[in-house]
Amino acid sequence: MTYCVALQLDRGLLFMSDTRTNSGVDNISTFRKMVHFEVPGERCITLMTAGNLATTQAVVSLLQERSKSPDERSPDILQLPTMFQVAGLIGQTLREVISRHDDNGQKASSTFSATILLGGQIAGGEPRIYLIYPEGNFIEASADTPFFQIGETKYGRPILVRAYEADMSFEDAMKLVLVSFDSTIKANLSVALPLDYHVYEADSLHLGRTGRIEADDPYFQDISSGWGVALRDAFAALPEFSFEDSAAPHEDTGGA
Amino acid sequence: MTYCVALQLDRGLLFMSDTRTNSGVDNISTFRKMVHFEVPGERCITLMTAGNLATTQAVVSLLQERSKSPDERSPDILQLPTMFQVAGLIGQTLREVISRHDDNGQKASSTFSATILLGGQIAGGEPRIYLIYPEGNFIEASADTPFFQIGETKYGRPILVRAYEADMSFEDAMKLVLVSFDSTIKANLSVALPLDYHVYEADSLHLGRTGRIEADDPYFQDISSGWGVALRDAFAALPEFSFEDSAAPHEDTGGA
Repeated sequence: MTYCVALQLDRGLLFMSDTRTNSGVDNISTFRKMVHFEVPGERCITLMTAGNLATTQAVVSLLQERSKSPDERSPDILQLPTMFQVAGLIGQTLREVISRHDDNGQKASSTFSATILLGGQIAGGEPRIYLIYPEGNFIEASADTPFFQIGETKYGRPILVRAYEADMSFEDAMKLVLVSFDSTIKANLSVALPLDYHVYEADSLHLGRTGRIEADDPYFQDISSGWGVALRDAFAALPEFSFEDSAAPHEDTGGA
Repeated sequence: MTYCVALQLDRGLLFMSDTRTNSGVDNISTFRKMVHFEVPGERCITLMTAGNLATTQAVVSLLQERSKSPDERSPDILQLPTMFQVAGLIGQTLREVISRHDDNGQKASSTFSATILLGGQIAGGEPRIYLIYPEGNFIEASADTPFFQIGETKYGRPILVRAYEADMSFEDAMKLVLVSFDSTIKANLSVALPLDYHVYEADSLHLGRTGRIEADDPYFQDISSGWGVALRDAFAALPEFSFEDSAAPHEDTGGA
């Protein structure tokens, strides 16, 4: 499994991905799931991948044109004029790689399946985020749905839904995403630190802050233990339930 | 989908289930998913079901011996001497119903599949909770895993993990379970109010407080709106992230 999040903020874009891959529970490894394509001053594109590792590595290699000798490479992803066209290129590449290993490339439930989060900006356009499906089609984030998740998305979703604000600072957004990762990591063994991140500042058109949060990162440990305490405090602050006031009891044996 | 929770507390047991059933998103109905079997002073047993509605209704009907005329009924579930044997009976019944509609009753992913939460107490034994799988086998809650969930379990799990205490009052436990339901209902359209509950007091050996929390229940609405505010406050109270202190940024273009 995997967990990756991309947030669209007024200030720019935030990407975070975990690094655990597993085949069963006894064959686990650390792989980077975030990759960047940059032409400084002209475009900055980030991909995050979830799903079959062979598929996602093949897609990234094809996008980087690794099948050509280094001096012949001139990847389309660095030349297409819009993020929409980049999403189309990646979707087509993903679909081709999956169908090469599968009789029917249309099946999202295929063993070889994968999903990709794409985000970035090309000069002349706005910063954009896309979620690309294994079938090759894709959706774009909007003000109504300002973030996308791939992989093990459920545990970490409630806090994103409740605490996301479009105008939050990058620092607050990092905190939010780390809380979301903490909930996921606590619940699913196949999502784990270290976490890679990229903070892209809107209209900068070059790679922003990137880094890796290691398992022993003191801030992450503070967040992880602090969030448990904060949740319990928040829970205690809610109004008390009373069997007398609410939901008048009724007799119902329902059977036998 | 469905969401049901059973908690084992020092004071007794708490059961809660939603009531939505759906076949696709345009064929939704309200069905009770909680059923009780009681011999006052001797035993009190509660079942909650998730999965194929035809399967779970058939299982409950068989347990109630509805295939016999009313004066011939003497269900085993009211006579078996231990909760362990009751769990075995229900598991066997569940497995038979599934395999009747399926070539291979062993497959948990079957269309006809269902999962059952069982809890209660029989005179001479302790209050117990079991999770019964479609294959007919089952596991029992323990001090390490003091609650079970079935159905759409992920969204509502983090708060249960963080805030559950074995010695909490029934009122606090109701509040906890309602928060867990609220997170699930906010995220999954196929889980919905009204919610049925049963609070079983240890060693009482009769049905405890039962009731239904309707969609317009003022306490649930307080919890639902209050939890959003409380979560945001808890989030704001966490230490601030700083790009300077933590996870020293590094250059990594990773491609192109």
